[in-house]
Amino acid sequence: MIPTPRVVEVRKNVLKRNDEMARALRQRFAEAGVTVVSLVSSPGAGKTAFLEQTLTRLGADHRVAAVVGDLATENDAQRLARSGAPVRQITTGTLCHLEAAMVEEAIADWNIAALEFLFVENVGNLVCPSSYDLGEHLRLVLLSVTEGEDKPLKYPTIFNTADVAVITKVDLAEAVEFNWKLARASMEAVRPGMRIFSVSSKTGAGMDEWLRFVASLKCARVGGV
Amino acid sequence: MIPTPRVVEVRKNVLKRNDEMARALRQRFAEAGVTVVSLVSSPGAGKTAFLEQTLTRLGADHRVAAVVGDLATENDAQRLARSGAPVRQITTGTLCHLEAAMVEEAIADWNIAALEFLFVENVGNLVCPSSYDLGEHLRLVLLSVTEGEDKPLKYPTIFNTADVAVITKVDLAEAVEFNWKLARASMEAVRPGMRIFSVSSKTGAGMDEWLRFVASLKCARVGGV
Repeated sequence: MIPTPRVVEVRKNVLKRNDEMARALRQRFAEAGVTVVSLVSSPGAGKTAFLEQTLTRLGADHRVAAVVGDLATENDAQRLARSGAPVRQITTGTLCHLEAAMVEEAIADWNIAALEFLFVENVGNLVCPSSYDLGEHLRLVLLSVTEGEDKPLKYPTIFNTADVAVITKVDLAEAVEFNWKLARASMEAVRPGMRIFSVSSKTGAGMDEWLRFVASLKCARVGGV
Repeated sequence: MIPTPRVVEVRKNVLKRNDEMARALRQRFAEAGVTVVSLVSSPGAGKTAFLEQTLTRLGADHRVAAVVGDLATENDAQRLARSGAPVRQITTGTLCHLEAAMVEEAIADWNIAALEFLFVENVGNLVCPSSYDLGEHLRLVLLSVTEGEDKPLKYPTIFNTADVAVITKVDLAEAVEFNWKLARASMEAVRPGMRIFSVSSKTGAGMDEWLRFVASLKCARVGGV
């Protein structure tokens, strides 16, 4: 059965190199006083809309920037740039996740000490990004109400490696008969005690609470992933 | 930069083995007179709901069965079994796609000659499944109206390797201000001439047209992927 042991071994080395680079990045970020938050979700869960709102509103009082990954197109960077924040697009070609080296390269000519918050939007994928530490201090996993309440049970690793969950598109919750209790139970089953925010980037619902939380990370000492 | 050439080389061998197995599978299916349709999409695009409707309605006049892949849980097999069709769940652990060997193993003790249609629901992912031929005769890519119209541009390979597109959850199109023209243009850009169905598994809209199409594949000689 595939994958063969040899593939697994090669993959281990790739992951080890990535982990070392991510640890070094996280230390650089901490020394520069920049809090790094990454976002993972399936395609279309609303990462970019949520991040655009976050950059716009958090950017009113803080120095924020973003790096965004996609297989192809600069669409997301263009959307995020509307917030006024510096934004870099990473295009991965056929790779289904970002790696620490890509983040490092994307921000190579930025003076990160001038930033307070850096957001890293991963490629839309509920599997591949889970194994790759990007040097972030906090990892968000987003789940839209239109996706189904059992996604955490079906993709346990990505929920397990995230620190905080954000339920998005709550304005559609009624239309899709979203079962809040079931969704929370699914998350609780794979990541007990996980903090959960519920937001609508369209109506703004829940954004105040999220923004207060993320702003508070600036002063707090945030732990590793 | 990762991936290293060595990883690429190993991956090529894995893909070659998979392709050979998939070709053999497709021939076995054709000889047994069973038409095989696979489904790919991002998590939560509505593959299982669409497949449940398809199995129920197509199953009234045809002998249908399904194999469904997920990283974890038997949830989808249980949902699909409500249609009355034989269903097998494949759990992939951490793998983000199905492979031909898994399909072969899942149906090993089935008499496939007794079937007319076999549906293979892949793991929810817009990247990984694109490189893996599963021996299917027709590959569907599903895109829900809640995901955003530019997904084909962002994930060109998966749309390029699919034969037919299905836009799902059209009952929500108005609520999310889905731009039909933009979505069709995105698909047309990466896969010119691609046939597109628009359905709602909830209201049943568009299902008649899809079912007529898939039923017609039974008599037609269907090409390779």
